[in-house]
Amino acid sequence: MNPVSRVRAAYARVTEVDRPEVWITLRDREDVLTEATALEERLAAGASLPLAGLVVAVKDNIDVAGLPTTAGCPAFAYLPDTTATAVARLVDAGALVLGKTNLDQFATGLVGTRSPHGAVRNALDPAKVSGGSSSGSAVAVALGITDLGVGTDTAGSGRVPAAFNGLVGVKPTLGLVPTTGVVPACRSYDCVTVFATTLALAQTAVATMTGPDPADPRSRAWPTDVRLSAGPNPVVAVPRDEDLAPLSPDARRAFATVVERLKTAGASTVTVDVSDMLEAATLLYEGTLVAERHAAVGAFVDSHPDDVDPTVRTIIGAAAEHSARDHVADLERLDQHRSRAAHTLAGTVALLLPTAPEHPTRAEVAADPIGVNRRLGTYTNLVNLLDLAAVAVPGGVADGGPFGVSIVTRAFDDQVAFDVAALLTGEQADGPYPDTGTDLVVFGAHLRGQPLNPQLTALGARYSGDVRTAPEYRMVAVHGPPDKPGIVHTGPEGGAALPGERWVLSPAALGRFLAALPAPMSLGPITLADGDAALGFHCDHATALSCEDITHFGGWLHYLAR
Amino acid sequence: MNPVSRVRAAYARVTEVDRPEVWITLRDREDVLTEATALEERLAAGASLPLAGLVVAVKDNIDVAGLPTTAGCPAFAYLPDTTATAVARLVDAGALVLGKTNLDQFATGLVGTRSPHGAVRNALDPAKVSGGSSSGSAVAVALGITDLGVGTDTAGSGRVPAAFNGLVGVKPTLGLVPTTGVVPACRSYDCVTVFATTLALAQTAVATMTGPDPADPRSRAWPTDVRLSAGPNPVVAVPRDEDLAPLSPDARRAFATVVERLKTAGASTVTVDVSDMLEAATLLYEGTLVAERHAAVGAFVDSHPDDVDPTVRTIIGAAAEHSARDHVADLERLDQHRSRAAHTLAGTVALLLPTAPEHPTRAEVAADPIGVNRRLGTYTNLVNLLDLAAVAVPGGVADGGPFGVSIVTRAFDDQVAFDVAALLTGEQADGPYPDTGTDLVVFGAHLRGQPLNPQLTALGARYSGDVRTAPEYRMVAVHGPPDKPGIVHTGPEGGAALPGERWVLSPAALGRFLAALPAPMSLGPITLADGDAALGFHCDHATALSCEDITHFGGWLHYLAR
Repeated sequence: MNPVSRVRAAYARVTEVDRPEVWITLRDREDVLTEATALEERLAAGASLPLAGLVVAVKDNIDVAGLPTTAGCPAFAYLPDTTATAVARLVDAGALVLGKTNLDQFATGLVGTRSPHGAVRNALDPAKVSGGSSSGSAVAVALGITDLGVGTDTAGSGRVPAAFNGLVGVKPTLGLVPTTGVVPACRSYDCVTVFATTLALAQTAVATMTGPDPADPRSRAWPTDVRLSAGPNPVVAVPRDEDLAPLSPDARRAFATVVERLKTAGASTVTVDVSDMLEAATLLYEGTLVAERHAAVGAFVDSHPDDVDPTVRTIIGAAAEHSARDHVADLERLDQHRSRAAHTLAGTVALLLPTAPEHPTRAEVAADPIGVNRRLGTYTNLVNLLDLAAVAVPGGVADGGPFGVSIVTRAFDDQVAFDVAALLTGEQADGPYPDTGTDLVVFGAHLRGQPLNPQLTALGARYSGDVRTAPEYRMVAVHGPPDKPGIVHTGPEGGAALPGERWVLSPAALGRFLAALPAPMSLGPITLADGDAALGFHCDHATALSCEDITHFGGWLHYLAR
Repeated sequence: MNPVSRVRAAYARVTEVDRPEVWITLRDREDVLTEATALEERLAAGASLPLAGLVVAVKDNIDVAGLPTTAGCPAFAYLPDTTATAVARLVDAGALVLGKTNLDQFATGLVGTRSPHGAVRNALDPAKVSGGSSSGSAVAVALGITDLGVGTDTAGSGRVPAAFNGLVGVKPTLGLVPTTGVVPACRSYDCVTVFATTLALAQTAVATMTGPDPADPRSRAWPTDVRLSAGPNPVVAVPRDEDLAPLSPDARRAFATVVERLKTAGASTVTVDVSDMLEAATLLYEGTLVAERHAAVGAFVDSHPDDVDPTVRTIIGAAAEHSARDHVADLERLDQHRSRAAHTLAGTVALLLPTAPEHPTRAEVAADPIGVNRRLGTYTNLVNLLDLAAVAVPGGVADGGPFGVSIVTRAFDDQVAFDVAALLTGEQADGPYPDTGTDLVVFGAHLRGQPLNPQLTALGARYSGDVRTAPEYRMVAVHGPPDKPGIVHTGPEGGAALPGERWVLSPAALGRFLAALPAPMSLGPITLADGDAALGFHCDHATALSCEDITHFGGWLHYLAR
């Protein structure tokens, strides 16, 4: 759909669904159409914009220049003249902002009901909560109004609404997406997140938003040894039955079904005790870490008691009372939880968790706003605190509504989370993300299924397709074990086009791979059939002279099958 | 000197210098001699121990099994049955612990006078303070009793005593040396440090102590892109004149002399405004971060008021009064200072600072114990707070006593700090440290002084000597620009031994170097004259066939000089 049509359809859908509580500021239709028209002109002129014409809903604690930022509190509103870095990157990639969405005030909640603009009703069952705090952005996507919803997540605000509305919700590693232009909740644990209906689109959007920002002192760059793949048969940790006690029997059944689907899709699972990780979650609101909420907006809350949601006021007000020494002690406890979590996850690439333990009605939340909310964070609070990444995906149906699960990984293993999540959504996993790797073409023992392939996968390398060389190479058989092909450059005369596989490696993975390379092999540029260059294997010429030429087999696998 | 003789000499020196206040627990001479004898037997049996027979003084806030840990407070004493990880690694490498040394109580001070065991007098001028808090360990080395002093450093405790006693003092990057078995001061900023009379020995000792420890949740591994060298002409930041205002005219003259020596030794300098970094220093004791001191030992101090040094009690007691929200705000300020410090240091490899602004007498400290102490941290407090590393070295004489300077680098650039410090001490810089790199042999345009050498130095690669290949290679001239040699493996017939240089690269540096490699080059194992293998350059054979053979020149530089 072209951008103008897409925008028209979005406004039509706004009217059709009649959910006014989704929006705090819905932009004027003509303004957005004007932008869409300008975008079409850029595209017609040849601009390449990966998110061209996608329509985006932005949570109203994130700045969009020219629109008020309210954080769900009208008295707090201000008019920013700069768009938040994360949203600006989406817009630069061709996305169109439709408006600013409702939220639990000051992003303080997981319910979606703590707002003077009204509780955001669930997209699928209006009697139930939407989940929060990124309630409006999630429901805008789930109702088919926008393609993308931008949220924030400190304790689960970008994942619980995904679970409750049948969406993908991505909470990247802390610091990958700058929080410049975001009203802080707990500054140390705040993330910008994305909702979408497909994993691929969510990943594209998050990838667009990542990258250091000098204005955000907490933004972080990808490490040089970042894993670019979950690997062919990922080992996924799953919690013990007792760790799932908060789930209803039907939700437990749904979770078990997800575990089986993971296995069917090629993963293996190991059961781990996550009780210590779940206990870490309680530090966020039952300990002193909530003091960050007071540091963020406490001065406003204290001076405007009548303008703030009573539940939010209670939580943020109480956050003022802790002492620095107790805060220091909680930070030390958190370090110890992180250390033990690393031990729990050793030998696995990810942890599968339910996203939320239950899906309450709006009436249930109204009856016990703090108690229900606290329970909803059972499986999400821990993720930001322990410096983990998560991708929340639909996980079937439980108790008559959507059931969601989260793939939780170590910091910076965001691509691993996407890969494991893709096993559940059935999508072809996109990647690699980040796009900071180097291509290496392999021809023999490192091919998928061959004996040295684990050297690549252990380094987090990612398979990215089959290739063929320019017709300038010959292949000899070098005796092992394991036997390997030797690739020799001959130039156009007498050369053949050899089949191989392209893998992507992080800088450190490439260095480690080279450091372990045995003679007579070396790595250097080769020319591919399309004329591009990539790194590939070369065989020492003096050695190759004494080996059998196997070029005529047309590739190593054909030679093996001779 | 053999270990037994070394131990005897150490005890003789203890008697000779008559500085009983240096020690809180001096071990029984016969016990240490027994260990020295056992060590000699291991060495005679062929054990290779890099610190064999070196005698060590350990600050008494660091556990040594079987000796009481007092932290300078007899009522706090306990008897550990496990030696602190850092010290255990020294002992495993052959070092012998002579005893536990005096300190500013609970490592709270930079003066060396806050101890019930008496003020530690300066090694060179007993009327002056030794500096603290690692006072005894520094003076033990400076008086020639021990070869190494192990200290701790939160605000400068491992550097100020180095400056005052004419020593090298190394404060590694936070987390590189585990703090397991160390009485915490401010847990987030505590480091284990080393004093020695030479940079080389200090570096060997620190390298021995580094490495992750599962028992220390704050221990950190080297990053995969760690810089292994300061490079040939390092750019060093120096403060503006106004940043040096706390120094006496003579100290300023001494500092200027050090700057000139750096330049003479090959560095270039740029003047930077360090006022924001100096301001960050005030957060440690004038803000809420001191709450970490209360979290560490506050419960003891509060319950044993009469057992604690009055100054220390005042400082730690006051640390209890801060609120968590103010602590959060200070942590945010600190993040912003870190971000600005990164900007200040951009384009430089290190920052040169005075280690301390003045060297007070014991009487001056007694007259104003808190005020003088605070001033002493002017140039050191900031280092741990901003997650930097530092090497303190002697920097000449000022006002009739030793003047010290510190080479301050980014986290994990510890080797860079050693390299710049070596320009001042005149030592051949040791390294690389960490020893996690891979050797790469270069033959032509990447040699020192040749046009592509900056590709290596920009990646933090380290030159580590000249080598010669096994006599199995030939060299051709590949036309550029720049012109390069092509190395072709011929095998024993017709090959020559080619001269090259060995460089060490981190895993990520090696990967990046390979990723940028142009045809016809590749990297793979070559055989050196001594039979060892190392990575080296190979030239595509098909290309080499069309190039002039220049093997007979005996190396690229001879060819260039033809």
